[in-house]
Amino acid sequence: MTNQQKSKKRMILNAFDMNCVGHQNPGMWSHPDDQTHRYKDLDYWTDLAKLLERGGFDCLFIADVLGFYDVYGGSRETALRTAAQAPVGDPAIPVSAMAAVTERLGFGVTKSLTYELPYSFAKTMTTLDHITKGRVAWNIVTSYQASAAQNLGLDDQIPHDERYNVADEFMEVCYKLWEGSWEDDAVVIDKENRVFTDPSKVHDIKHEGKYYKVPGAHLGQPSPQRTPFLFQAGTSKAGTAFAGKHAEAVFVIGTSPEELRPTVDKVRQAAAEAGRDPRSVKVIVMLTPVTAPTDEEAQAKLEDFYKYADTDAALTLFGGWTGVDLSSAPADQPLESMESNAIRAMMEMLTRVDSDVVWTKERLAKWLCIGGFSSSIVGSPTTIVDEMERWMEIADVDGFNLGRVIAPGTMEDFVELVVPELRRRGHVPQDPGADGAMTLRERITGDSRLPVEHVGAKLGAEVSGSLVR
Amino acid sequence: MTNQQKSKKRMILNAFDMNCVGHQNPGMWSHPDDQTHRYKDLDYWTDLAKLLERGGFDCLFIADVLGFYDVYGGSRETALRTAAQAPVGDPAIPVSAMAAVTERLGFGVTKSLTYELPYSFAKTMTTLDHITKGRVAWNIVTSYQASAAQNLGLDDQIPHDERYNVADEFMEVCYKLWEGSWEDDAVVIDKENRVFTDPSKVHDIKHEGKYYKVPGAHLGQPSPQRTPFLFQAGTSKAGTAFAGKHAEAVFVIGTSPEELRPTVDKVRQAAAEAGRDPRSVKVIVMLTPVTAPTDEEAQAKLEDFYKYADTDAALTLFGGWTGVDLSSAPADQPLESMESNAIRAMMEMLTRVDSDVVWTKERLAKWLCIGGFSSSIVGSPTTIVDEMERWMEIADVDGFNLGRVIAPGTMEDFVELVVPELRRRGHVPQDPGADGAMTLRERITGDSRLPVEHVGAKLGAEVSGSLVR
Repeated sequence: MTNQQKSKKRMILNAFDMNCVGHQNPGMWSHPDDQTHRYKDLDYWTDLAKLLERGGFDCLFIADVLGFYDVYGGSRETALRTAAQAPVGDPAIPVSAMAAVTERLGFGVTKSLTYELPYSFAKTMTTLDHITKGRVAWNIVTSYQASAAQNLGLDDQIPHDERYNVADEFMEVCYKLWEGSWEDDAVVIDKENRVFTDPSKVHDIKHEGKYYKVPGAHLGQPSPQRTPFLFQAGTSKAGTAFAGKHAEAVFVIGTSPEELRPTVDKVRQAAAEAGRDPRSVKVIVMLTPVTAPTDEEAQAKLEDFYKYADTDAALTLFGGWTGVDLSSAPADQPLESMESNAIRAMMEMLTRVDSDVVWTKERLAKWLCIGGFSSSIVGSPTTIVDEMERWMEIADVDGFNLGRVIAPGTMEDFVELVVPELRRRGHVPQDPGADGAMTLRERITGDSRLPVEHVGAKLGAEVSGSLVR
Repeated sequence: MTNQQKSKKRMILNAFDMNCVGHQNPGMWSHPDDQTHRYKDLDYWTDLAKLLERGGFDCLFIADVLGFYDVYGGSRETALRTAAQAPVGDPAIPVSAMAAVTERLGFGVTKSLTYELPYSFAKTMTTLDHITKGRVAWNIVTSYQASAAQNLGLDDQIPHDERYNVADEFMEVCYKLWEGSWEDDAVVIDKENRVFTDPSKVHDIKHEGKYYKVPGAHLGQPSPQRTPFLFQAGTSKAGTAFAGKHAEAVFVIGTSPEELRPTVDKVRQAAAEAGRDPRSVKVIVMLTPVTAPTDEEAQAKLEDFYKYADTDAALTLFGGWTGVDLSSAPADQPLESMESNAIRAMMEMLTRVDSDVVWTKERLAKWLCIGGFSSSIVGSPTTIVDEMERWMEIADVDGFNLGRVIAPGTMEDFVELVVPELRRRGHVPQDPGADGAMTLRERITGDSRLPVEHVGAKLGAEVSGSLVR
């Protein structure tokens, strides 16, 4: 880092994507310039990875779902027709190809622990961390879709708070495997004495909990980060407590930096309550950028995007996220007149977005088409970076999860137009390769390993019988 | 294919590997030329993929285990010390990187269905098939290790035959998802009319069985092969019936082509009994090649390898495969004197390997170090190819799963020395790229899709309400 950069809070720059067509940009796949129908091709991903690395991004974050969005109209019909997160592919599969064409970009992989067994899951994540040389993050998800639960053997979803208890124990098992089971110097590769691993330095984790029983040792040798860098979304009460205990980066959304600030404070507070440095939890806000050389051109670009806004697509996602089916609501009915607690809660947010418009379902859909519930930032590079700095300062966030309107257009615009301005102001390194090979955690926190006060490091030390480090 | 090749039975050429150090070559990691400790590095896999593609291989087959080998001596100690399939990584993770550097090589991924949920598993395999453009195979495994079962939430293993019932239903769910849920023309990508997928062409599979309940539709759009090419190992009675019904290629081992022949006949018979063309099931025998320009040099190479044979390593694998712990047997005791049904059955095989030696555990271990229970073929390129032709003819196998003694040495030797001879005799295409982009199934069977008489195609047709094709 240059001195100029050291004087500033480091800005974390992630791209937010998904192995599918419509992500948080419902309807935009039909824009003539959009190429997301190529999501199933390898070069779609390797080109994206190269673009982001060139643009100094820290991480490509890939979301996931395990079911269809079928609340809107009571079926998956609109989800399929409008490609609203369906069809969808496994986020972990393209990672090794992207790792092969990059040197510093990180990869955030979403996996729902609800449908994983911790013992085999831990092995898969260790493999990813090895093959990326420590550039992998795990977005910890506990699943919320009934359509997923039904197809994956659960008669119904696990209640919300119970889900976090399961999640908490799942994490505990993983930490024991990743952090404690193999000591740093367990693998010796001594050809002369024919010792590959010193068995005395590999430990059973002896986990016997309420939900999981895992007596044995981890199958993988320690990877560069051991525990993948831990992302988490969700700001419910249980979710925030979970994040405070486990997450190293938390994704949030907000209608303005001012409105978001209390949420950010709560996340840091939760970390402090878990005995951690409140600033060690990075808070990342999702923003969806629309940029062009001038503010006027950016505004024209936004108006052009609006032509492809798809109400059905937007309300399909809305239904999945909120559980509210707006299919039978009249197009011009003000939402605030509807009898629904979810809608009333929603109206609080929408009024903050714009208190001057009448929020009908069509107006809502148009807003959702540019980045879902996230705020969008529209303007010239100067406007965009000014705005990003304002979010950093007022909301006290550490960085951004940038959504796509069209792909690869949105990220290409950002890298070509905005990144030079970010570099000029010292937010993004001038030379992406200058800081050399580094793990994702090291790049973001300065250390490849979990901090000693993190629950994962503590559990690891218990298993190995001493502090591993 | 050239006319010369058409006149011969096509020879299927696979490399057999594993995301670990010691595979079926216990102890050989300590050879000075061996580099398998690099199994966790990306370029280990991309270099291997490029080598195999250059050598005209059809497929890189990657094995897997989900537990330690802990029968020998009653602990995992020797498995760790000798790197006997431990540590081990997930076989699916390196695939996309290898796909990015190759155009025709297939990738056989081992996954145990015992620890997968069919709905999410089907999504992962569809993703792999998309990203490789139809070059993925699945090696169907039902797990056999107690050490895996204990750590993955099963109190004990599922009994052998019951395992195949579970497996059969797991396959049924997958076929319905892969073959029947989405019609060929479901995805239309009609930007003008804003229809990505025609919802009327996506079907619920409505599966309600004894072990699985999966009412919904597949999350992935049809991939080039839909069902990955299906590999299976195992020649127990239940295993053979399962293979006859499901497998498109079956892995076998044998001490000689003559001895193997009845097994091959049984596999083809099982396919016929399942209403399939008996020749549509490809039988692949594992062989471990040791080659050099002359027979004498090859023999010297073998003697050199023997110096690194590791009895503990070999008997660790032996214990895992047979359940017999030879740790307390005296080194010079003839195995035939031991009171064990498993050993008595084993002696039948060992006597066929060599009836002139006294089979002690040390002699057994030396034999196991070159390719486990597989036969090895040692000699000049001419000798090796003569021998391969003999296996093809007498055992009636369709091809080979070539094991490694050291890596990448064994495959390098094979590609440099043996492949030119295979090309000269028309067994391997002269120009690996000449037959262009093709799916793995098309390359092996001439068609990218399951044959209509395969149970998978039939179940697919039932779900879609008509023959999909």
